[in-house]
Amino acid sequence: MSEKSIPYKIYLSEDEIPKQWYNVRADMKNKPAPLLNPATLQPMGFEDLRPVFCDELIKQELDDTTAYIDIPQEIRDFYKMYRPAPLVRAYCLEKALGTPAKIYYKFEGNNTSGSHKLNSAIVQAYYAKKQGLKGVTTETGAGQWGTALSMASAYLGIDCKVYMVKVSYEQKPFRREVMRTYGASVTPSPSMETEIGKKINAEHPGTTGSLGCAISEAVEVATKTDGYRYVLGSVLNQVLLHQTVIGLEAKAALDKYGVTPDIIIGCAGGGSNLGGLISPFMGEKLRGEKDYRIIAVEPASCPSFTRGKFAYDFCDTGMVCPLAKMYTLGSNFIPSANHAGGLRYHGMSPILSQLYHDGYMEARSVEQTAVFEAAEQFARVEGILPAPESSHAIRAAIDEALKCKETGEEKTILFGLTGTGYFDMVAYQKFNDGEMTDYIPTDDELNKSFATLPKVEI
Amino acid sequence: MSEKSIPYKIYLSEDEIPKQWYNVRADMKNKPAPLLNPATLQPMGFEDLRPVFCDELIKQELDDTTAYIDIPQEIRDFYKMYRPAPLVRAYCLEKALGTPAKIYYKFEGNNTSGSHKLNSAIVQAYYAKKQGLKGVTTETGAGQWGTALSMASAYLGIDCKVYMVKVSYEQKPFRREVMRTYGASVTPSPSMETEIGKKINAEHPGTTGSLGCAISEAVEVATKTDGYRYVLGSVLNQVLLHQTVIGLEAKAALDKYGVTPDIIIGCAGGGSNLGGLISPFMGEKLRGEKDYRIIAVEPASCPSFTRGKFAYDFCDTGMVCPLAKMYTLGSNFIPSANHAGGLRYHGMSPILSQLYHDGYMEARSVEQTAVFEAAEQFARVEGILPAPESSHAIRAAIDEALKCKETGEEKTILFGLTGTGYFDMVAYQKFNDGEMTDYIPTDDELNKSFATLPKVEI
Repeated sequence: MSEKSIPYKIYLSEDEIPKQWYNVRADMKNKPAPLLNPATLQPMGFEDLRPVFCDELIKQELDDTTAYIDIPQEIRDFYKMYRPAPLVRAYCLEKALGTPAKIYYKFEGNNTSGSHKLNSAIVQAYYAKKQGLKGVTTETGAGQWGTALSMASAYLGIDCKVYMVKVSYEQKPFRREVMRTYGASVTPSPSMETEIGKKINAEHPGTTGSLGCAISEAVEVATKTDGYRYVLGSVLNQVLLHQTVIGLEAKAALDKYGVTPDIIIGCAGGGSNLGGLISPFMGEKLRGEKDYRIIAVEPASCPSFTRGKFAYDFCDTGMVCPLAKMYTLGSNFIPSANHAGGLRYHGMSPILSQLYHDGYMEARSVEQTAVFEAAEQFARVEGILPAPESSHAIRAAIDEALKCKETGEEKTILFGLTGTGYFDMVAYQKFNDGEMTDYIPTDDELNKSFATLPKVEI
Repeated sequence: MSEKSIPYKIYLSEDEIPKQWYNVRADMKNKPAPLLNPATLQPMGFEDLRPVFCDELIKQELDDTTAYIDIPQEIRDFYKMYRPAPLVRAYCLEKALGTPAKIYYKFEGNNTSGSHKLNSAIVQAYYAKKQGLKGVTTETGAGQWGTALSMASAYLGIDCKVYMVKVSYEQKPFRREVMRTYGASVTPSPSMETEIGKKINAEHPGTTGSLGCAISEAVEVATKTDGYRYVLGSVLNQVLLHQTVIGLEAKAALDKYGVTPDIIIGCAGGGSNLGGLISPFMGEKLRGEKDYRIIAVEPASCPSFTRGKFAYDFCDTGMVCPLAKMYTLGSNFIPSANHAGGLRYHGMSPILSQLYHDGYMEARSVEQTAVFEAAEQFARVEGILPAPESSHAIRAAIDEALKCKETGEEKTILFGLTGTGYFDMVAYQKFNDGEMTDYIPTDDELNKSFATLPKVEI
């Protein structure tokens, strides 16, 4: 098919929304390691996880053999409100860069949550409702995940309790108001509503909170309140499974035009977007059918893949959640205060960690001023103001396209544009004012953090 | 075609982006009255308007006989970045309302400017560039139009100077930062950069500015700076012309599925969205080919159509711009301070004013708490957080759908969803907190304002 016939935006029809999620674990020889009970350090089974998670989601979490899992029709109907998401050919960016590379991006920001998070939020809320539960609890930092879960819960008519890191609650009132508009209760964390919140407030008067604390509060409320379960927006196997709609749609759209990417790029915090985007391509690679260069991009200030250890660690700083084997900087690692670009999680999806460990993908870290430069360049020619998180992938895509310009290679690059930056203007302002700085943690800092890794023999 | 076969979202292909704008004036028996020179009160011709506007745009402004005007290919290429915009069947809203009515909305918010304003911004920036100009100037209040013009200017590589009402500049820093990210210079108005700004600052120390003052500054800079022209986001005939891409796409999408709307609803501030949405349908009505109920919805606190006079008035409060014959509340009318929902302009598009005067459309006003109730209901079931402006149309669409529920009539309703509310969370917060109030200006207030209408005999 001729170049010219590829439109700016490739939309699939609603019939082409995936009917099944693809479970990449089924094609992995080395499966991701099991979650461990934080008290006993033993692998957790179905029953162990029931007080915290919905039954159907636990099944998905533990299932590492079924390659395709059906998407319920009700969820596909919800997906129709904002999916299929467009696959965009970045003609304008290619022209601005003067590159022979062909750049495509899968845009997941055309919904009110502003990101791909909605793809999993609706699934988790759906199974909670189907199990007859009254509602769900979760934590949120900047608020993207909390917004997505609020939207899904409003649609299904179940309750949604969000524990929002206090400093974000106070400094980012707009995300909070979006969640409230969707009917969620939003509580600044640490609160005086939970035991752990009261304890932390007593021990650290005036604390502005942390994600780890908010997780602990959300888990406590879920386990102590009749009819509630806890849900999470990244890291878990189930979340990566739900997010494969991104990659399945992207692949279907490319296949329709006979296009095969050479390089696939995604930003990586907990791994939900990256895992979702690459899974179907990774499946082909694992089965030896095709080869792709797959690149994870993370902030230099929070370099889990590129400088972390592959080890069992706690998923939360409160150390109440299960342990996962993953690339981690240590559960008490906190990125430098100057870090504005999201992707602050200390660990990484166990699936992606295993794949990276086994050499199926690359990782690189980028500094945030370079990320915002890429974001600005992209916005001005492609029209979309990207989220700082997504802009990590833009940075790498531009860098690869510029390499093609040097070598003259006409490579095809696919990257994930996970969301929009409309609620990140404080960071953009810092950049516009020339006040943004970079920070790379020293080896000493990381070593101190690694020293807190739990001793696990399994 | 069966009901079931209509998807949630009808996307046209990029080839189906309109190739021509439709000029509804060509089908109007009573043409809109000409603009008048504010000094001489005589009709303004091409040469009179050249110091302020670009040549090609003046031609479009004055042309009331050519029915179809070609859209340059470069503009269609830009449109491809975010158009065709989806026509959405509001299945979820219909279900929530329990109405037999069929509701469709044309969604114009899926672009970073967050509204339909980009449709005209790119055209005005394009003709400025084609005329060899260096840049454009404009005013902005909340910032939607300024953002759209910044995006268009960045794409074309021309300069963009935005005068932003000082109180908005200070209270809405995020819109300002979006504009800066797109490379625009954003100056709080009144500034000390212009004669009119200096004069106003001297006469009213500490003033927080007004749209009228910002217009005057933008016009002064455009006329006094070599290579610049002034551009405007609504009211003018040319702007309505550009915005007909909304209605043309909506009609093409409906025609594809054999659907004919009974009722067409749009919110109305200066009239750019309403005019753009209804023009192709209005054309059929004017030519006697079809009949539609067409409803303009405006805020009860700024009721130009429903309580204004059809008279010549100044387009700006500074009284330096041309006079237009329109429904107006008087050029010094300012909506109550409690008004949060946009659509604050004192006048109305001359085209729409003439059509309303001649009985081709209806108008109604709605109060803002009722508007935000509709916005919240819509957001929770349709997923999109609407702009307060757009929510005026949602209110009326819901009201008409509920009437159908009473009567059992299966009417087809089309409304314009002009944009998203991501930068309007202060207003949503007021609503969420139960602190939003309504205000309807008294007859005395309006009579005082009407007393300032200029005496024009023509």
